[in-house]
Amino acid sequence: MSTSHHPRSWVASANDHPDFPLQNLPLGVFSRPGFGKRGGVAIGDFILDLQTALEASLFNGAARVAVEAASRGQLNDFFALGGSSRQALRHELLHLLDEKTLQRERLQAMGERLLVPMADCQMHMPAQVGDYTDFYVGIHHAMNVGKLFRPDNPLLPNYKYVPIAYHGRASTLGVSGMPVRRPNGQTLKPGAETPDFGPSKRLDYELEVGVWIGQGNEAGEPVAIDKAGEHIAGFCLLNDWSARDLQAWEYQPLGPFLSKSFATSISPWVVTAEALAPFRATQPARPEGDPQPMAYLFDEQDQAGGALDIELEVLLLTAQMKAQDIAPQRLSLSNTLNMYWTVAQMVAHHSVNGCKLQAGDLFGTGTLSGPQPGQLGSLLEMTEGGKRAVELPNGETRTFLEAGDEVILKARCRKEGEVSIGFGECRGVVIG
Amino acid sequence: MSTSHHPRSWVASANDHPDFPLQNLPLGVFSRPGFGKRGGVAIGDFILDLQTALEASLFNGAARVAVEAASRGQLNDFFALGGSSRQALRHELLHLLDEKTLQRERLQAMGERLLVPMADCQMHMPAQVGDYTDFYVGIHHAMNVGKLFRPDNPLLPNYKYVPIAYHGRASTLGVSGMPVRRPNGQTLKPGAETPDFGPSKRLDYELEVGVWIGQGNEAGEPVAIDKAGEHIAGFCLLNDWSARDLQAWEYQPLGPFLSKSFATSISPWVVTAEALAPFRATQPARPEGDPQPMAYLFDEQDQAGGALDIELEVLLLTAQMKAQDIAPQRLSLSNTLNMYWTVAQMVAHHSVNGCKLQAGDLFGTGTLSGPQPGQLGSLLEMTEGGKRAVELPNGETRTFLEAGDEVILKARCRKEGEVSIGFGECRGVVIG
Repeated sequence: MSTSHHPRSWVASANDHPDFPLQNLPLGVFSRPGFGKRGGVAIGDFILDLQTALEASLFNGAARVAVEAASRGQLNDFFALGGSSRQALRHELLHLLDEKTLQRERLQAMGERLLVPMADCQMHMPAQVGDYTDFYVGIHHAMNVGKLFRPDNPLLPNYKYVPIAYHGRASTLGVSGMPVRRPNGQTLKPGAETPDFGPSKRLDYELEVGVWIGQGNEAGEPVAIDKAGEHIAGFCLLNDWSARDLQAWEYQPLGPFLSKSFATSISPWVVTAEALAPFRATQPARPEGDPQPMAYLFDEQDQAGGALDIELEVLLLTAQMKAQDIAPQRLSLSNTLNMYWTVAQMVAHHSVNGCKLQAGDLFGTGTLSGPQPGQLGSLLEMTEGGKRAVELPNGETRTFLEAGDEVILKARCRKEGEVSIGFGECRGVVIG
Repeated sequence: MSTSHHPRSWVASANDHPDFPLQNLPLGVFSRPGFGKRGGVAIGDFILDLQTALEASLFNGAARVAVEAASRGQLNDFFALGGSSRQALRHELLHLLDEKTLQRERLQAMGERLLVPMADCQMHMPAQVGDYTDFYVGIHHAMNVGKLFRPDNPLLPNYKYVPIAYHGRASTLGVSGMPVRRPNGQTLKPGAETPDFGPSKRLDYELEVGVWIGQGNEAGEPVAIDKAGEHIAGFCLLNDWSARDLQAWEYQPLGPFLSKSFATSISPWVVTAEALAPFRATQPARPEGDPQPMAYLFDEQDQAGGALDIELEVLLLTAQMKAQDIAPQRLSLSNTLNMYWTVAQMVAHHSVNGCKLQAGDLFGTGTLSGPQPGQLGSLLEMTEGGKRAVELPNGETRTFLEAGDEVILKARCRKEGEVSIGFGECRGVVIG
């Protein structure tokens, strides 16, 4: 594989960086001791401080407008500007950070005012989330979970027509590193007639991708499927922490509530559609006999090679493994090609009833399991509802998460002839 | 009934006002031509402009802090101040607006700068809603709806243990007067195997009370039931517009989504716990054999007479009735005493898993039907799922809502020896 024709950066750590080479340039909100929250761009082991860039007038025209919006303590205004501003900013950044830029000396002279070592920074929520919606587009997950509850009829009749989703809780979203407290709640023991109350005994993760909404729509004006892409600002990883025992008892008839609302973690970097463009793929064909999507969901672009092809990974690091200096253990390797509905279909469906989407809204895809063992996006699936323990390299076993367990989600795009990019990590340690 | 010992206001229209006598003093956000959004207090046919009051230094101490927060274009900061600030403001307002106040001449001289005719004003959302949660605490509604779907087993086994709720859509909340566009969506005709797409044919309202959250809690720190009242800023009416045909097809397994997210209307005035205090009642005893609430839900205060006793009314005005100058027709008269779970129980349950509540969060109670005909909070219930049409005074009939129909919710508190107060209205006209 040769990527030698791709431009390199004068930020040395960006070249061959697993996540943040010059080709990625994701945006986020960071702070460092003594300075307030502000927008930045990941490049190698550094964050380009957009406030410094703005003050130094490094950008002009549309890119300057974009930087003004992106340099603030939240990216909502930047998201609202839409694709052309985002592209203008990327265009300028690609020039500024290229090893061949004529401004290299001036930029290097700005030192850590411009390029802040990532290790010194704390990341924050990239935007204030107005509404958070969690979809259920991972068909293998829906099938696996359905089998546990309804062996004869795992997939409900609406699944292949409706991109199923529910509203999630925005107030408990947090970025990678947020500790995850084990929730208390009601559970019904097998065979019991009355519920118990106490800490969840079946705490789980869910491997998802998050979708940041850019330009919104007016109430009553649905986003057409062929315009849906213009309403997406970027992507992240998302862990939809779930208390399975609370969920089983509470979820009928209105869906999951306290079993999910205690915490949802995301990776802090917003990876743009532009960065993902080289890695688009053809959405796998629907299995023979599956219905065609209805007209408002017919996504010509993704069928023609616009689907997401992102490798997704779950790793587990227990407190004991950490103490023993054992590396995190991979639990799963999946891919966004396991989505039955595309991101464009999610946007079109969400707004088809006139629902207003706003810049900074966040969608989760739902758990993205693959069809094979080793591709499962939750412990519920891996352990078949807690029946088969997962073995770890130090002899520990897990059916569900225990105190001190750290779950690490990663995502990466690779393609022959392209420079790989990554999403960074979405980590969370279970407390209690 | 004598209320002669109760103070009267020098704002003449407040005395004997059906909604806004001196004893109510609800807060809201309003604008009038030429002026921006700001906080105000309803008094008779007027709105007391809190920005004018602030500029004129009408308040001191804790009340001044409260007015500073409440005079802005949204009440979130005021809500966050909590009960003691709210009570200080009420205390001062009761003095200022009392007919015996020594400041009467000075206040009257301020004219419409201080007291703006309500008829000249537009009302706005009282606060920016972080998260909107809709509960399901109307047991008669749960029973009626359950009967339509599961005649043998109308109430699910968790209902009497769990205050069932789901996350709603915050972006499409609007105040009384917001037009309600009929949503498009997928529906499954009876007997059909594949869904159709088009405008909902079973558009309905739901009679609910809204609960504004005041002081929030930190993530991971549940609100104890005996402190729950301190976290409530006030109450409003709420119409959870629902597309029943979309709902029936989409709601499994994750609950209602597009069938509700197109619009939710609220009344604009925030009626405080202090205004409701004289009308508190003893929560009706649970039916014999019902389980006692779990410890975290055991609400001593409401059992001892702290429950809400608010009369709730639904009226319908069709376009034809309007043209014929026929008054709105009452469809239902219900009461908050039909809540199986109290507001305190809702707060305690919502946060028991550590979920963070924030100032300006909004709860809906769920549809509050009574046990009798004439007390039903939705057309779904009144028409038994569309089977029995409702007759209107001009000979029209309705199973579900039609274009031009206006739904009007009202709420009132009455008690022997007390001055009645009202919530104002929550109105919405169906478009299309």
